[in-house]
Amino acid sequence: MPAFPKEEFLGRVDETKRRMDAAGMDCLVVIDAANIFYLSGFDAHSAYVPQALVVIAGEEEPRLIVRDMDVPGDTAFMAAKHIHGYPEDYIAHPRSHPYDHFGDLFRAWGIASKRIGVELSQLDVVSWGRLQQALPNVRWPDADGLVTWQRLIKSPAELAYMKQAGQIADAAMRVAIEKSVVGARECDVGAEVMAAQIRGLPEFGGDRPVTPHMPSGCPRVAAPHLAWTDAKLAPGTVTNVELGGFRHRYVTGLSRTIVQGTPEERLQRLHLATKEAVDTVFDSVRPGWTCEEVEALFRKTTRKHGFEKKSRVGYAIGIDWTEKTASLRPGDLTVLKPDMTFHLMAGMWYDSWGYVLSEAFRVTEGGIESFSRLPRDLFVK
Amino acid sequence: MPAFPKEEFLGRVDETKRRMDAAGMDCLVVIDAANIFYLSGFDAHSAYVPQALVVIAGEEEPRLIVRDMDVPGDTAFMAAKHIHGYPEDYIAHPRSHPYDHFGDLFRAWGIASKRIGVELSQLDVVSWGRLQQALPNVRWPDADGLVTWQRLIKSPAELAYMKQAGQIADAAMRVAIEKSVVGARECDVGAEVMAAQIRGLPEFGGDRPVTPHMPSGCPRVAAPHLAWTDAKLAPGTVTNVELGGFRHRYVTGLSRTIVQGTPEERLQRLHLATKEAVDTVFDSVRPGWTCEEVEALFRKTTRKHGFEKKSRVGYAIGIDWTEKTASLRPGDLTVLKPDMTFHLMAGMWYDSWGYVLSEAFRVTEGGIESFSRLPRDLFVK
Repeated sequence: MPAFPKEEFLGRVDETKRRMDAAGMDCLVVIDAANIFYLSGFDAHSAYVPQALVVIAGEEEPRLIVRDMDVPGDTAFMAAKHIHGYPEDYIAHPRSHPYDHFGDLFRAWGIASKRIGVELSQLDVVSWGRLQQALPNVRWPDADGLVTWQRLIKSPAELAYMKQAGQIADAAMRVAIEKSVVGARECDVGAEVMAAQIRGLPEFGGDRPVTPHMPSGCPRVAAPHLAWTDAKLAPGTVTNVELGGFRHRYVTGLSRTIVQGTPEERLQRLHLATKEAVDTVFDSVRPGWTCEEVEALFRKTTRKHGFEKKSRVGYAIGIDWTEKTASLRPGDLTVLKPDMTFHLMAGMWYDSWGYVLSEAFRVTEGGIESFSRLPRDLFVK
Repeated sequence: MPAFPKEEFLGRVDETKRRMDAAGMDCLVVIDAANIFYLSGFDAHSAYVPQALVVIAGEEEPRLIVRDMDVPGDTAFMAAKHIHGYPEDYIAHPRSHPYDHFGDLFRAWGIASKRIGVELSQLDVVSWGRLQQALPNVRWPDADGLVTWQRLIKSPAELAYMKQAGQIADAAMRVAIEKSVVGARECDVGAEVMAAQIRGLPEFGGDRPVTPHMPSGCPRVAAPHLAWTDAKLAPGTVTNVELGGFRHRYVTGLSRTIVQGTPEERLQRLHLATKEAVDTVFDSVRPGWTCEEVEALFRKTTRKHGFEKKSRVGYAIGIDWTEKTASLRPGDLTVLKPDMTFHLMAGMWYDSWGYVLSEAFRVTEGGIESFSRLPRDLFVK
């Protein structure tokens, strides 16, 4: 069953068609798996082979082209006749390519000489060559970001999932804090954390999670994007946990640092500086602020304490984690509007140590509101 | 700490250089995250931003270019001077692109007018344009598959990890069978399965797992690549579990079907046909067979029972699951040699039902050997 009612999807597709019209496109080839999910609900974990959603200006429902075996499952909202499987022979074939079949379909649909937008940053160079070869009369405007930017403001139904995701993230982080004890293997903590992400709450379960980042100890804790090892947590070990709550692919990010025993003084200072900056952002930011103003406030606050974050302090979040649209960084003039959602990611890393604190938030009518209820603490065991 | 000793990586890099030389390349830009891991050990979950490993013919160690924050962590084997971070300013910047910085580095390294192989099927169209623009005097031969095919035959150290992965996969599948009971929420079973994948064994833990496929009930069970839902398992429900054991990114795939109560007659027949075909493959296949001969034997055996698999019956497996090299399918003339590893994936899916049975195997001197010890049963609860 699709994750949203048909009307929700049709509304999204209508808006996409408006954007296509404004950009001078007759059709749109959507390749980004998150965008395919957004416009259709299609939820198979199958993007490792070519697939696409095709939005045609004059048609109500988009058409999905996927590998034959991925047609069943009833996750996309469209009528069965709009879900096209390509033969298994195209998979891993030395000469033929699934896009050859796309060419045949596009000709059958009468769109083989139209202006067809395509998400070029989602398409590899080899496939792009095959697609152009299969459809030599198509004009291919770049449609990068067309659907992704449409996702910036969330609907009530999307926000409902993100609120559930927020509860799941809190539950999983509580497990991370509880299970991180001296003597525990890092992988055993990781196992409990991912189980909590998937189990979710009694009222609703969690979706497929992205593996949490949770490096422990020096030197791993100085890098943000590592997982566990087999090692046992030792006295003094610092673990930086960045995890998501997942609900029908909607994500809320959440990060906390956990220490086995008294934290080093520099870690305590960085925690206090970061917490003050995050608290200040949550207390101050209003709709109408630009993304770079949010970052500037954060930067000003930590700088008072002698810390400066080199990387952006956040980005739009929604389906499948990062949305490639607005970032909380200098130069980003995107104006915050109600029901935009961001991950305020205030981690800082140095050569041999690091600290993380993050929460996802929604822009409200009067400010911003976290999806998390967890204290902004440095968790000392 | 890198997943292998330095000598293992240097041997791999040497072989890559031999292949580059044969293909007329002075340098190689490796983009596939699995290939980067294979040649360097770099293990951050950071491929969502541009990164590359650059192999230069005259240099012993390759050079890694990653986002600044991903430089620490000590997962790559190379000396620190060979690990280059690009500034955070390039991330999500509307005008500049990390490949602009690659251009500066390549000029500094004196390779800006060389023949540089690049994995074009791993590079998106937009990034490809930026890379060519940044380095207008480079000749760019397509290096697709150069490193990936090198990975086809595994070293003893790789096989050691895959054997451990096989034990982890068996343990996780036993948990799936045990926890799948009438009344259990699918997500709660999924939570236990992923925890088992990560926990691994007391002697060694599991690495980041790919989310298992485990669709339950009609219509989801007719599709191979779906996860769990919140629904509770009901009497008669069929669940098709495809999961991996993961150890330092090396994977062994494993699939079994679980039924709550007496299975339908057609499912029993398909199980017996598939099991006979899989048993026959394990009893018969020897080094020297071609991939298509393996598939033909499988096909002949199930056809006797009135079943025919539409998709390939397997593919090379190693780092990060599927390796894009040999497939067990008609037309693939790759000859099996000792220490190649495959995932024999014998799932079949119909409009409203399906069945799975799979095991990863290693080609030995005298035959093929499964990484799993689990009975090839249809598990009836």
